[in-house]
Amino acid sequence: MRVLFLGDIVGRPGRRLVAAVLPLLRARYAPDVVLANGENAAHGKGITRDVARQLVEAGIDAITLGNHTWDNRDVFELFAEGALPVVRPANYPPGTPGPAFWIVERGGFRLAVVNLMGRAFMPPLCDPFRTIDGILRELEGRADAVFVDVHAEATAEKQALAWYLDGRVSAVVGTHTHVPTADARILPGGTAYLTDVGMTGPRDGILGMEREGVLRRTLTYLPGRFEVEERGGVEIGVCAVEIDASGRSVKIESARFTWDSLEEA
Amino acid sequence: MRVLFLGDIVGRPGRRLVAAVLPLLRARYAPDVVLANGENAAHGKGITRDVARQLVEAGIDAITLGNHTWDNRDVFELFAEGALPVVRPANYPPGTPGPAFWIVERGGFRLAVVNLMGRAFMPPLCDPFRTIDGILRELEGRADAVFVDVHAEATAEKQALAWYLDGRVSAVVGTHTHVPTADARILPGGTAYLTDVGMTGPRDGILGMEREGVLRRTLTYLPGRFEVEERGGVEIGVCAVEIDASGRSVKIESARFTWDSLEEA
Amino acid sequence: MRVLFLGDIVGRPGRRLVAAVLPLLRARYAPDVVLANGENAAHGKGITRDVARQLVEAGIDAITLGNHTWDNRDVFELFAEGALPVVRPANYPPGTPGPAFWIVERGGFRLAVVNLMGRAFMPPLCDPFRTIDGILRELEGRADAVFVDVHAEATAEKQALAWYLDGRVSAVVGTHTHVPTADARILPGGTAYLTDVGMTGPRDGILGMEREGVLRRTLTYLPGRFEVEERGGVEIGVCAVEIDASGRSVKIESARFTWDSLEEA
Amino acid sequence: MRVLFLGDIVGRPGRRLVAAVLPLLRARYAPDVVLANGENAAHGKGITRDVARQLVEAGIDAITLGNHTWDNRDVFELFAEGALPVVRPANYPPGTPGPAFWIVERGGFRLAVVNLMGRAFMPPLCDPFRTIDGILRELEGRADAVFVDVHAEATAEKQALAWYLDGRVSAVVGTHTHVPTADARILPGGTAYLTDVGMTGPRDGILGMEREGVLRRTLTYLPGRFEVEERGGVEIGVCAVEIDASGRSVKIESARFTWDSLEEA
Ligand SMILES: [Fe+2]
Ligand SMILES: [Fe+2]
Ligand SMILES: [Fe+2]
Ligand SMILES: [Fe+2]
Ligand SMILES: [Fe+2]
Ligand SMILES: [Fe+2]
Ligand SMILES: [Fe+2]
Ligand SMILES: [Fe+2]
Repeated sequence: MRVLFLGDIVGRPGRRLVAAVLPLLRARYAPDVVLANGENAAHGKGITRDVARQLVEAGIDAITLGNHTWDNRDVFELFAEGALPVVRPANYPPGTPGPAFWIVERGGFRLAVVNLMGRAFMPPLCDPFRTIDGILRELEGRADAVFVDVHAEATAEKQALAWYLDGRVSAVVGTHTHVPTADARILPGGTAYLTDVGMTGPRDGILGMEREGVLRRTLTYLPGRFEVEERGGVEIGVCAVEIDASGRSVKIESARFTWDSLEEA
Repeated sequence: MRVLFLGDIVGRPGRRLVAAVLPLLRARYAPDVVLANGENAAHGKGITRDVARQLVEAGIDAITLGNHTWDNRDVFELFAEGALPVVRPANYPPGTPGPAFWIVERGGFRLAVVNLMGRAFMPPLCDPFRTIDGILRELEGRADAVFVDVHAEATAEKQALAWYLDGRVSAVVGTHTHVPTADARILPGGTAYLTDVGMTGPRDGILGMEREGVLRRTLTYLPGRFEVEERGGVEIGVCAVEIDASGRSVKIESARFTWDSLEEA
Repeated sequence: MRVLFLGDIVGRPGRRLVAAVLPLLRARYAPDVVLANGENAAHGKGITRDVARQLVEAGIDAITLGNHTWDNRDVFELFAEGALPVVRPANYPPGTPGPAFWIVERGGFRLAVVNLMGRAFMPPLCDPFRTIDGILRELEGRADAVFVDVHAEATAEKQALAWYLDGRVSAVVGTHTHVPTADARILPGGTAYLTDVGMTGPRDGILGMEREGVLRRTLTYLPGRFEVEERGGVEIGVCAVEIDASGRSVKIESARFTWDSLEEA
Repeated sequence: MRVLFLGDIVGRPGRRLVAAVLPLLRARYAPDVVLANGENAAHGKGITRDVARQLVEAGIDAITLGNHTWDNRDVFELFAEGALPVVRPANYPPGTPGPAFWIVERGGFRLAVVNLMGRAFMPPLCDPFRTIDGILRELEGRADAVFVDVHAEATAEKQALAWYLDGRVSAVVGTHTHVPTADARILPGGTAYLTDVGMTGPRDGILGMEREGVLRRTLTYLPGRFEVEERGGVEIGVCAVEIDASGRSVKIESARFTWDSLEEA
């Protein structure tokens, strides 16, 4: 099974970029399944049912989230209905709305998609290590491969989780920093690893937001709303993983594509 | 002028890797100046005069540091003597030992090397934005180009600093996460930018340290000394910047090279 | 000069409590000057001109703030007009709106009121130590005594600032934790010190906010607006400092008064 | 049952102060049980078997700890032997050495002593709320009253835990800040609460450590070992709780006693 993963989709530019370039990415990577992190898909902050549906219609098979999961109250409706393939970080406390994993099936091969949040420089959710242990037990006999999006700030935490899971899941792929890393590799046990996939959206902002606002706040410490950058170039960070029938990954590639404007993409 | 920058050198494996591969890197990039971050060069923690001399002998023209600057007390002697081309983060408070910049001259072209530390998820040093403003004033007429190593955790802070300095310095290149990023670019004003150059040292540890120790602490929160990983593969993250006579950067390339053992490198 | 200081005034219950008990506190402490921290005076979040005027009318001579300074946009108008005796934390960067000190005069004795923010577990503003050094130079010849409200989380940082300033200011009194401490003392150099004055407002919430909301967020990590607790008891934390003609403090007392309802107060 | 609790004992001055004043405190409070936080008892950093034995001989019935639990490797021996009445924070992960509670019996009345660590501005241990829920289930039928030392930085987290446990435990008493608070009260459900008991040790340092060293680090961000302050005054912060036969607390008192030298105490 070939899985294509798209980094954090940021606002309307990010969603439009997905629609524009997914056909090209399909041609290039021939994925069986397309996943994306959607924590910034709605105006840079969280997700809604409308936005999730739009992404599904564009061809995303399952959507992961992160620290922005709850930024839109509509996500509670989304989770209550349970119809859309959107998973929240699994290490929120027991009882949290939303599924802790989502299974995508292709020709009888069942891929479980899991989202975990790191805790270094982030809220003290439940331990992601013990949480994934529990989920793997729960998935025994229910999934043929497991794909983990670890949404975290610290590189050490992402690497630690990848080594911890080496040989037990097919892929550990990071998100959150909005910057793609150049360290894709297959760990000895057959787990594909990439510290961060990067971002899908505006290229000339700061993490996709208007840089004037971010710079003003950085320099003054005064409050200010950040808006998604609508001008300038766009970029998409992607990662393609090939998983064999046994669930071992045999290949991982990552890339960052960039255009000087959305129209060119 | 062509500048080659090597990411955080970690311990003996990192120093040996520098010695082994710098000739090859010279052949490939034909640098006029070679810089490296050395904050982990001495057993993974800080730097000493011996280690700095070793790096200079291997061909490093100037060494930047970071949050591990003071891990070895010998660095105070190093700074007191002032003989070795080692700069500390410039945004420590006024009066801190060690130079805030270092000038490397090649054929009359003077490159000022500056090291700044971020403050997000790091100690509240002086504001790196206002600090570099002051240094740039001080460097007027004394340098033809400025190369900034921004040692920081948060991608937003690195990007903010790069945009803030666009057109005012030749390069803003990040270190500290030990993971190379894939976002090298020339900003509109002529400043070369890369979020993180990565690391020079052990590839199969966690940020270069033995992963058993890091995992044990991550899982138990019990104390434990971390040792540099001496086994397994090695890697080097590099970045090459070409600066024209006016101080504008015209090209930036980054790469990560990896070998299955130090002997192969 | 006798100075009475009231801890963080929280919302309408806090403001009403000030109006109700200030006469009694005047009778008890016979203050020449009354100061209060007002960072939570407007619905628990920041301050407005209306709220500041109300406090001045109730008898507050100068108001300090803290990390909630900018929660209401009206504070920018307040500072632009410059008519109300409200100071912001002095260690915001140069150019920040609002005064870094305020001088209250009584019978020719000039008391400078300064507000500083700590940096441990708080935003990396300018260094409060070097900031107050600069302010003290600026105040030379312009003030007979200096009263510092250090708005900080960490007890170590508050104590460090107090010892640093011992003999150079009349009082270092802490705010922000909303819990009064029992450690009032005169340091050897004549500086009155108290780690935290406590709070003026609802007693049966959590730091003055409805505890259901705070507990829900603590247990679930889901977002939620906090409202000021309007039910239950009220409390006021106060501190009285007596400063002699030379600017040395000779006496400091602190107290927490509590009532089972606002009506009883 | 009357319980006396002593705040964090700091180094040799703290241990000597306990020995000197415990007789006077017994005379004043007539406690049935004496508890103390000992996380700084060994040279300011952690605890050892020798130090624990010394405290038990001085009359401490059970010792709680905190973030300094593991500072001395001897604590692993202490826990392995299991002979000394020392509890570690209960919300370390399952499998952590050391007991999660300790039961002290007096005339058939069984008091369970529990230590919890907060997570705000501290390591992301397990959730203290759900941890204490589990311990209370485990203690059903095995204890007549539960005394909780919540070792935490943030006042909000301490208050939240107290309200969460109101009516379910006899006392929630805070430690860690080394500064006694003035907010002792009985919550409506019968739980005694105090945000922080304070410290047992040197009065004229910063949190008990030599203030020159702390100030130097605060001003320079350079490393430096902190030593326990051996000069100057001493202080002890205490809290006395009276628990009725049903496990409800009916009285809580707190006090800070201070002397100009250890000899005077
Ligand atoms: Fe994101
Ligand atoms: Fe995120
Ligand atoms: Fe490093
Ligand atoms: Fe670093
Ligand atoms: Fe406040
Ligand atoms: Fe505050
Ligand atoms: Fe302590
Ligand atoms: Fe502590």
